[in-house]
Amino acid sequence: MERTYIKDLKDKIGQEVKIAGWVDVRRDQGKLIFIDLRDVSGKVQMVCLPNHEEAIKTADLVRPEWVIEVTGLINARPEKNRKEGVLNGELEVEVTGIKVLGKAKEMPFDKDEDLNLDTYLDNLPLTLRTEKAKAIFKVQATIISAFREFLNTKGFTEFQAPKLIGEDAEGGANSFNVEYFDHTAHLAQSPQLYKQIMVGVFERVFSTGNVYRAEKHSTTRHLNEYTSLDFEMGFIKDHTDVMNMENDLLIHIMKKLSETCTNEFKLIGADIPVVPTKIPSLKLREAQEIIKKEFGEDCSNEPDLEPQHERWLCEYSKKTWDSDFIFVTHFPISKRPFYTYEDEEDTGYAKGGDLLFRGIEITTLAQRIHDHDTLVASMEKKGLDPEKFRYYLQAFKYGMPPHGGLGLGLERITAKLLNIDNVKEATLFPRDLNRIDNRLSE
Amino acid sequence: MERTYIKDLKDKIGQEVKIAGWVDVRRDQGKLIFIDLRDVSGKVQMVCLPNHEEAIKTADLVRPEWVIEVTGLINARPEKNRKEGVLNGELEVEVTGIKVLGKAKEMPFDKDEDLNLDTYLDNLPLTLRTEKAKAIFKVQATIISAFREFLNTKGFTEFQAPKLIGEDAEGGANSFNVEYFDHTAHLAQSPQLYKQIMVGVFERVFSTGNVYRAEKHSTTRHLNEYTSLDFEMGFIKDHTDVMNMENDLLIHIMKKLSETCTNEFKLIGADIPVVPTKIPSLKLREAQEIIKKEFGEDCSNEPDLEPQHERWLCEYSKKTWDSDFIFVTHFPISKRPFYTYEDEEDTGYAKGGDLLFRGIEITTLAQRIHDHDTLVASMEKKGLDPEKFRYYLQAFKYGMPPHGGLGLGLERITAKLLNIDNVKEATLFPRDLNRIDNRLSE
Repeated sequence: MERTYIKDLKDKIGQEVKIAGWVDVRRDQGKLIFIDLRDVSGKVQMVCLPNHEEAIKTADLVRPEWVIEVTGLINARPEKNRKEGVLNGELEVEVTGIKVLGKAKEMPFDKDEDLNLDTYLDNLPLTLRTEKAKAIFKVQATIISAFREFLNTKGFTEFQAPKLIGEDAEGGANSFNVEYFDHTAHLAQSPQLYKQIMVGVFERVFSTGNVYRAEKHSTTRHLNEYTSLDFEMGFIKDHTDVMNMENDLLIHIMKKLSETCTNEFKLIGADIPVVPTKIPSLKLREAQEIIKKEFGEDCSNEPDLEPQHERWLCEYSKKTWDSDFIFVTHFPISKRPFYTYEDEEDTGYAKGGDLLFRGIEITTLAQRIHDHDTLVASMEKKGLDPEKFRYYLQAFKYGMPPHGGLGLGLERITAKLLNIDNVKEATLFPRDLNRIDNRLSE
Repeated sequence: MERTYIKDLKDKIGQEVKIAGWVDVRRDQGKLIFIDLRDVSGKVQMVCLPNHEEAIKTADLVRPEWVIEVTGLINARPEKNRKEGVLNGELEVEVTGIKVLGKAKEMPFDKDEDLNLDTYLDNLPLTLRTEKAKAIFKVQATIISAFREFLNTKGFTEFQAPKLIGEDAEGGANSFNVEYFDHTAHLAQSPQLYKQIMVGVFERVFSTGNVYRAEKHSTTRHLNEYTSLDFEMGFIKDHTDVMNMENDLLIHIMKKLSETCTNEFKLIGADIPVVPTKIPSLKLREAQEIIKKEFGEDCSNEPDLEPQHERWLCEYSKKTWDSDFIFVTHFPISKRPFYTYEDEEDTGYAKGGDLLFRGIEITTLAQRIHDHDTLVASMEKKGLDPEKFRYYLQAFKYGMPPHGGLGLGLERITAKLLNIDNVKEATLFPRDLNRIDNRLSE
């Protein structure tokens, strides 16, 4: 007999089926044993009756998380026992046979309890099996898939960016060192330089993969390894082409989530945001004016936004334009990376900015410098050594179109979409100052 | 005016268009200047006539790899000048205006010449712009996309595997060390342990991403960083379920390549292989018998296949079953990783094996041990310390179904499909003993 997924049992009432999965809960009630069986698709209540002797003997052995294969009859529940709005609330499996596929040791705790974060992270191979964790990572898988799907339809080509890089050309203490034979290599902080090179090859490119930040932060926002969704596009008019592309990308992602993940959002108690056709956009100086007027703090001399400012702007955007999203552009060019394009019509400021969503920055985007000599001058102005960028500079030496792009942190957007406070809960196996799977201090 | 892609010009004969791209070739002929313009979609011949004064003045400046935006008229070529079977062989663009978007320095060499590998690799930002390189990496993007597409339809969930790992639990000199704050971390050699953990969560999972091998090889087959396509599936009967899934996966990939990349295969002079409905499969001992009988070498006491043996078996498979693919299963369990499942009906041998394609192994697959105590015993037998696998072992402590999976090297399969001898040519930015972008010895 073929295995039936638990979500499909409702179509087989009155029939015999084979199902398989994990014992979620087991309850004894007199001579009956009730087992809630869980597979990837859902849960079902099963009952073992004394007349199926072999089956109930095996049922008596099983404990939570044992993996079993069950044959049984799907019976409709009597009217009074039906549960409305619950998967399989209208049926029950009468077990006729059980085969043990995998045993489990005794549970260290009830996995469905509200665990503290360290216990949760110490036991991910078990705690990821909860409904909540599965919902989070199904949403995450859908976001990355929708990202690729959208860009493929827009003529972008995927490429594999290297993560192991040579010169830590941008300098800074934020890169991890790797012992590379007799040399020191580094882990890439972004695929930035490679995706620009690839614009010279395919015009529009994207890449998904891990990036690394050797930051000693231990906050709810930072990770030392995360997944970056990056795209870069050539032949743009200016940074607004990138903003429009991201706008449409977000619309597509939310559409996909609405089609496939409504149950997951419901379970977690979060709403899929509506993305405006045109996300509101302010220059930093305008945003600072608003903060001063609406929230009473004068931050107009600051070159960047503090977390509280980001929260205020999102509050303002929601109130004024009913948008969970807002672009803030034109940060001072002096505070942006060397490859950022300066606005000729607003000198001193960058053609690009950040996208804020529900109180936090989720994207940095910009037009990039595409002229070789301008790029070299910008490096020198930032105190960087062009010789260390020799490889990358070849792309510009041999002709590059105007281009721009962005990076989007997969874990961060997952967390914000699901109203999860700590990004570590939206990261499958988070690495931080104190933990790589196990706690490092141990 | 909207930009038209060069591949779409044939539908606009007689019209005015805007096109943009790189100057591929520029030829002067009397008072005329001919420019072949290249964008991501193809090439077209343009002619600048003296009557368009501004345009020809700019045309006189441009050199190979300059990026320009052109307005022009699409003229049909006179019958005698048409080139059959070539994109835009039937038309020519009469340039009416040119805008320079990006300049280029003088070329160091003709990028379309047959370069030696080191020159090619030293100059990838330029040399990746050749037709051949673009074809290789378009095929590669199609393979990875088809891999994900197929698995999504089969109920697999994508997950993001960490690459930064703690304990180098499997031991061995083949892992790179990373300075991780006050600790030493490592770069993952595969997502193996994580994908098994994830079977406990989603039953069927896949992951695509970089993996690392600190091997001091300098061959045409090895890379120190490559892209691994991995899947793992639960509730299997045995390793043949994994083999069948790979069989269908390969059929799907070749179908996608046939639909979207026939021009690329033609350009490179390679054929898209036909994947049999059922790829032939031999046990290692049977394969060794065949090698002895057909090729005269007795390797029946060896626990593995040498490169020459793999080539012979592929030759035999092609001749006997007209298949470019052949599975070889049941290697001695003593030579396989600790998590490999031993065949109860053929003790001493593994339930799993390798897939050979055009003379080389492209996949290792197997059923895995799912019982906790059997797994611990296997580690101990291999001299490994179960305590170092504490995190991973939780998955097995708390109930795992029978499962198995495989890993497929993206660059290697790209190379073999396109008959490229050196895998470095099928790797976007290859890292090896002597090179991370720049040569390390410099």
